[in-house]
Amino acid sequence: MASFLVNGQPARSVDAADRGLMYGDGVFRTMVVRGGRPLNWARHYRLLARDCACLELPCPGESLLLEEIARVAPEASVAKVTLTRGASGRGYAWPVDFEPTRIVAAWPGVPDFPDEAGRGVRVRRCDVALAIQPRLAGVKSLNRLESVLARAEWRDPAVREGLLADSGGRLVEGTTSNVFLATGGTLVTPALDRCGVAGSQRERVLELARAEGIACEVRDAGFEEFERCDEAFLTNSVIGLWPVAAFGERRWEPGPLARRLQRLIEEDDARGA
Amino acid sequence: MASFLVNGQPARSVDAADRGLMYGDGVFRTMVVRGGRPLNWARHYRLLARDCACLELPCPGESLLLEEIARVAPEASVAKVTLTRGASGRGYAWPVDFEPTRIVAAWPGVPDFPDEAGRGVRVRRCDVALAIQPRLAGVKSLNRLESVLARAEWRDPAVREGLLADSGGRLVEGTTSNVFLATGGTLVTPALDRCGVAGSQRERVLELARAEGIACEVRDAGFEEFERCDEAFLTNSVIGLWPVAAFGERRWEPGPLARRLQRLIEEDDARGA
Repeated sequence: MASFLVNGQPARSVDAADRGLMYGDGVFRTMVVRGGRPLNWARHYRLLARDCACLELPCPGESLLLEEIARVAPEASVAKVTLTRGASGRGYAWPVDFEPTRIVAAWPGVPDFPDEAGRGVRVRRCDVALAIQPRLAGVKSLNRLESVLARAEWRDPAVREGLLADSGGRLVEGTTSNVFLATGGTLVTPALDRCGVAGSQRERVLELARAEGIACEVRDAGFEEFERCDEAFLTNSVIGLWPVAAFGERRWEPGPLARRLQRLIEEDDARGA
Repeated sequence: MASFLVNGQPARSVDAADRGLMYGDGVFRTMVVRGGRPLNWARHYRLLARDCACLELPCPGESLLLEEIARVAPEASVAKVTLTRGASGRGYAWPVDFEPTRIVAAWPGVPDFPDEAGRGVRVRRCDVALAIQPRLAGVKSLNRLESVLARAEWRDPAVREGLLADSGGRLVEGTTSNVFLATGGTLVTPALDRCGVAGSQRERVLELARAEGIACEVRDAGFEEFERCDEAFLTNSVIGLWPVAAFGERRWEPGPLARRLQRLIEEDDARGA
């Protein structure tokens, strides 16, 4: 069972007039917690603060969030921080003196994916195309209907992720993950300046790779390039890094960059970064 | 103070794990209630059912909703029906056996707008452009961040509405209203097959106008056409119909079509349609 703190108090519910519910007026981030401490915290917090700034929401202080995460997730858990603009009357205009809602939730246990991380996963392409909205690009907002519709396109458990294009046909991300390709030793991940969610694990992989001297490009990429690449992988904070093993008829063996970055992520986690 | 029924029970809150809050996975409609009966109900219900179908949500029966609206809004009120996919664990995939959440809310009193309906209103153009997402076009979903950001662009109370373009520059709607233009006696309202919300009042105005033999076109329109038109007006269920009186330097007097349609709406409401 999940545990929740709402504005610091144990609770199972939020105000029915919360703007998070009425309009998706808020943001969230999901993280793995071990020993009461979120992994990859610095990047989670940086992106949460950036997302808050995009919506003109105040971001709570780091120490308050860390204290509440440790309180609700004392053991190994998956934790989620949700920040909304709080309850208001009807109408899109937010009150000058709005009182944000802060939800810190934890699900006990950290899922383990030895097969997916080891042998890699099958992915498909989703029919839903992501709408282009630069004002919200990269932001992990509570407006996630496109992801919900995309994830509803398949129930085959052998397909572990769906890849999304934007309305211009460019490869953007998975429904719950970011995507990387590598060709000739250069790592490419789609630019997220039109749509998509910038995951904390994506930021970390880019930083770790650059620190190792691996060439990284953040730019537009198409499905043709994806199908031709030497290796591809998916990242998010809970799955870590999954090599892509199959897409339609195309097959890949997990490649050297995926293996190297999996090791670097593990080391980074062990350092408590 | 607002009153709420959550799944038929008086309540002020919803589950913190509701997918309406987590992902905006739901829809809503807002209506005026008089004598316990929502005005323009048939169209509200038709659009609610259509929006539910778009998200593969079950739509509650008409009699259940009418009974709950009458219970929570016995007098003149503004009522809102919100339907979500209910609480679930983390992850965009919805459970096969999901249990939807039904929120019926009411705010006592019906606002009256004699000046706006009489003399017309000043409108502006918003900087936020609506993203093109045909899968959700027309649907009044709980993903309303674009409307929130657009409404945050101005605080001048003399500006009563902001007009939104889509990312292709086409005129789509107001932040909380649909927009109509008339030129040479022909009524035009933007097609909502790429983005935007199809309001119940918009549907009614189109039907009432056609029944009167007024030529109606539902198609793309630009801001140039808007600025050149003989008359323009805004519609939604709470405001009714407001003539547009000013946009930048452009001025209009409330026109004959706006007056005629205001009268037709009033008559339709009096019949209890």
